[in-house]
Amino acid sequence: MIYLAFEVSNMNIPSHVTFLDAFFHSKSVAVFGASTNPNKSGYKIVENLLNHQYQGKIYPINPRGGTILGMPLYKSILDVSDPVDLAIIFVPNVHVVKIVEDCIKKGVKGAIIEAAGFGEVGLEGKKLREKLKEVTENFSKIRVIGPNCTGITALTEDGVGFFSSFIPMSKTKAGSLAIVSQSGFINGAYYPDFTERNPQMGLRYVVAIGNKMDVNENHLLEYFLYDDKVSTIGIYIESFHDVRKFIELTRQAHKKQKDVILLRSGFSPLGAKATGSHTGALAENSNLIEAVIRQSGCILADDFWELFLIARTLTFMKDTGTAKLLKPNVGIITISGAAGAIMTDWSTKMGLIVPELDANIYNKLKELYPPWMDPNRFALIDYWPAVEHVKSYEKVILSSTDIVLSSPDIQVVFLTVYYNANSWVVDWKKLKNIVEKHQKPIFVWLFGAYQDILQAESIFQSIEIPVFYSEKSLVQTFSKIFHSLNFRKKLLN
Amino acid sequence: MIYLAFEVSNMNIPSHVTFLDAFFHSKSVAVFGASTNPNKSGYKIVENLLNHQYQGKIYPINPRGGTILGMPLYKSILDVSDPVDLAIIFVPNVHVVKIVEDCIKKGVKGAIIEAAGFGEVGLEGKKLREKLKEVTENFSKIRVIGPNCTGITALTEDGVGFFSSFIPMSKTKAGSLAIVSQSGFINGAYYPDFTERNPQMGLRYVVAIGNKMDVNENHLLEYFLYDDKVSTIGIYIESFHDVRKFIELTRQAHKKQKDVILLRSGFSPLGAKATGSHTGALAENSNLIEAVIRQSGCILADDFWELFLIARTLTFMKDTGTAKLLKPNVGIITISGAAGAIMTDWSTKMGLIVPELDANIYNKLKELYPPWMDPNRFALIDYWPAVEHVKSYEKVILSSTDIVLSSPDIQVVFLTVYYNANSWVVDWKKLKNIVEKHQKPIFVWLFGAYQDILQAESIFQSIEIPVFYSEKSLVQTFSKIFHSLNFRKKLLN
Repeated sequence: MIYLAFEVSNMNIPSHVTFLDAFFHSKSVAVFGASTNPNKSGYKIVENLLNHQYQGKIYPINPRGGTILGMPLYKSILDVSDPVDLAIIFVPNVHVVKIVEDCIKKGVKGAIIEAAGFGEVGLEGKKLREKLKEVTENFSKIRVIGPNCTGITALTEDGVGFFSSFIPMSKTKAGSLAIVSQSGFINGAYYPDFTERNPQMGLRYVVAIGNKMDVNENHLLEYFLYDDKVSTIGIYIESFHDVRKFIELTRQAHKKQKDVILLRSGFSPLGAKATGSHTGALAENSNLIEAVIRQSGCILADDFWELFLIARTLTFMKDTGTAKLLKPNVGIITISGAAGAIMTDWSTKMGLIVPELDANIYNKLKELYPPWMDPNRFALIDYWPAVEHVKSYEKVILSSTDIVLSSPDIQVVFLTVYYNANSWVVDWKKLKNIVEKHQKPIFVWLFGAYQDILQAESIFQSIEIPVFYSEKSLVQTFSKIFHSLNFRKKLLN
Repeated sequence: MIYLAFEVSNMNIPSHVTFLDAFFHSKSVAVFGASTNPNKSGYKIVENLLNHQYQGKIYPINPRGGTILGMPLYKSILDVSDPVDLAIIFVPNVHVVKIVEDCIKKGVKGAIIEAAGFGEVGLEGKKLREKLKEVTENFSKIRVIGPNCTGITALTEDGVGFFSSFIPMSKTKAGSLAIVSQSGFINGAYYPDFTERNPQMGLRYVVAIGNKMDVNENHLLEYFLYDDKVSTIGIYIESFHDVRKFIELTRQAHKKQKDVILLRSGFSPLGAKATGSHTGALAENSNLIEAVIRQSGCILADDFWELFLIARTLTFMKDTGTAKLLKPNVGIITISGAAGAIMTDWSTKMGLIVPELDANIYNKLKELYPPWMDPNRFALIDYWPAVEHVKSYEKVILSSTDIVLSSPDIQVVFLTVYYNANSWVVDWKKLKNIVEKHQKPIFVWLFGAYQDILQAESIFQSIEIPVFYSEKSLVQTFSKIFHSLNFRKKLLN
């Protein structure tokens, strides 16, 4: 048995993906291209590791020497006396092969090659690509993520973890979402965007696979299957390494109650050309791929915005124990009849049901209403008359949501919230209690003055109730989540 | 000839809608239900009028007397000695008929009845409805907007105008957008939301027509045709008064280069039931309506969010002189290849073209790029290599946008912006200069740290460049605007 410098994550993990432990659970990392200049990206990688209290040892490497953030720069990895698990290689493409050779000599298990210029364009890139295969003996001597990538983010606890990107990253919450991306963007400049917009959406991993010369989406998907901390997987992909294997793995993920959200680009001929220019992805038979994807039971996202809208919503639903969706039945509780009608339209169009309320539930609701205005018999509740009658916005919001969610016919409430920081005050945490009591989610469509809205978004984020800007998008998110789950059930039976 | 207390807006306006001048250009208004209690809605209506420097005289009316905001409350409108053009009636439904009778006696030309309870539900409502028709002699003695509405907002200059809603409203910019809504929501609690999110989207009118017992969407549409200040019309509708007339009027609007954005609810059977319960709308033959709407050349919005996304975008395009769209050809300039690929996919799917760049344009672009990475031949520009080469984000952003927009083959640029308040600094106002130089719009998809994003949104709003959260939504907005324009051209030829 060989000595493993890195931690072993799970004994049951299939042997052909255990190598990923060296990437995700390294005890030491060498940073090639570490710069003494605080404005350079090679400096920021080291800074990111320190800022996020990476628990392993850091060996910054630069032939010019010097110091960085109080650490000496090694001129070569061969000067390091202790074992090194992992390398981040942030240098121009022409230097990469030599560095990889050194890493192999040193016994490094994994390398994240961030440099571009390996086969996407031009003859030189193709040559470097071949050379890389050769010195690694087809990646048998060292495993490689990349080239042309921003590598890995792996959180162990809130704000603590391993960061290989050069973009300064926020102190993210640790959680259950794992992302695989064929674009470096998600583990780069877009990272602060989706994490700061959704501070309560906890992350476990973000992996940019770049050109995926060695490690591909299937390795990662398989690895995530055996990480119990991962419960939602988001994938941005431009070309599948092996689409049949991918489908098989997503089925396994579904069996383990893990959700897979898939965003694919290149589905149009020109889009495919676009991705070809981007990471060297090969053109695929689009119709075949389309058909296969439809069989996967994955939740299909329309774009990055929706990918994180759904990911955020799913992680909230899992955290609050509301992810078990049995029926496509929604209750709509609204202060705007118009917004309610629009949500009803889209619900119907997207295969959801706004059912009749049973007599028991209906009678309870009716008590909130003035004699001159009964609520609807079906589950579209316009609560304005009730507010006029009861004279308490809080009571109406909380009671009607509680009553509607208590119905076994209702799976979720779409709640329209008028938020005003000064009047119409509600203790919104009580809404979270209702979610937990019934173990059913609430989706919020919010409006009000803009500064109030920003405040309200932060409150709803803190109680893990998803907020949407677009009424259609709210309905679509629930519909996609529900239908994926339902499709999967049939798939697995 | 009768004496007109109100101003006359336009001599060419058809005589059957001149009566609307009394609503939009009144010189005096009576507020029935004005309350001395600052927490009551009847107080806030008067406060709104004062806060927005309504240029006419205000006569607050309440049988209990007292004073409000330094003005005496009249016990009856018949105690007012001067002529009164308009009445806002904010009292419980049972008192409305008597008040309308008094208004007729006083010679009031128009009444905005905000009270609900006129035929939506119950026998009493139906009786009141009949009584209202009777005393007004079928609205021949006084014209009525409502009942069950929040009435009118009409801006004459920035922050100045007539406001009949009881929701405190922000100091909106005066501009070219007119809204007609069958829901009070848009002229109520949703107003601060869309105006504060889009401070640069100028408004001319917002009219909530409620149950439209008398004044309906067609009267308003026809009136707006003759108001030169109106260039974009947004309509939320639950049931058409006369759909053929509506189509005819939208055609006239298009001939006058006014855009019409239409959001319709009740397109599903249950949605129709929902709107029935809401404002007493009658069920309509959904298939017929669908077909007719498709012939209208209107821009169809999916929900409120999209209605204002499109309205905001159109008003920016008109203000910056970029609303003349000749070709469906887009240039995509992006720092994320992935975001570019997704926009390319959606563009292709939505009937837009990402063309090959002609040699001249291509060669100019190439100068920004490093020798090892040429740009694409088609108009999807991934500018990251150029930034690495030129070492100036600003130069690359501005030059590539300028070069691409200078091509006669390109109609619009979809620009991906990474915004960072501290580094990667760009003088964004220069982007506006480029818009004005080429008379072509730029649509921005923005990302970065959340606080930076908020700052950036405000900057782009101030230079009237529309920002989008969702990449698909960006493409869809342009596509809807382009295709509506194109459809109309064929319609009018």
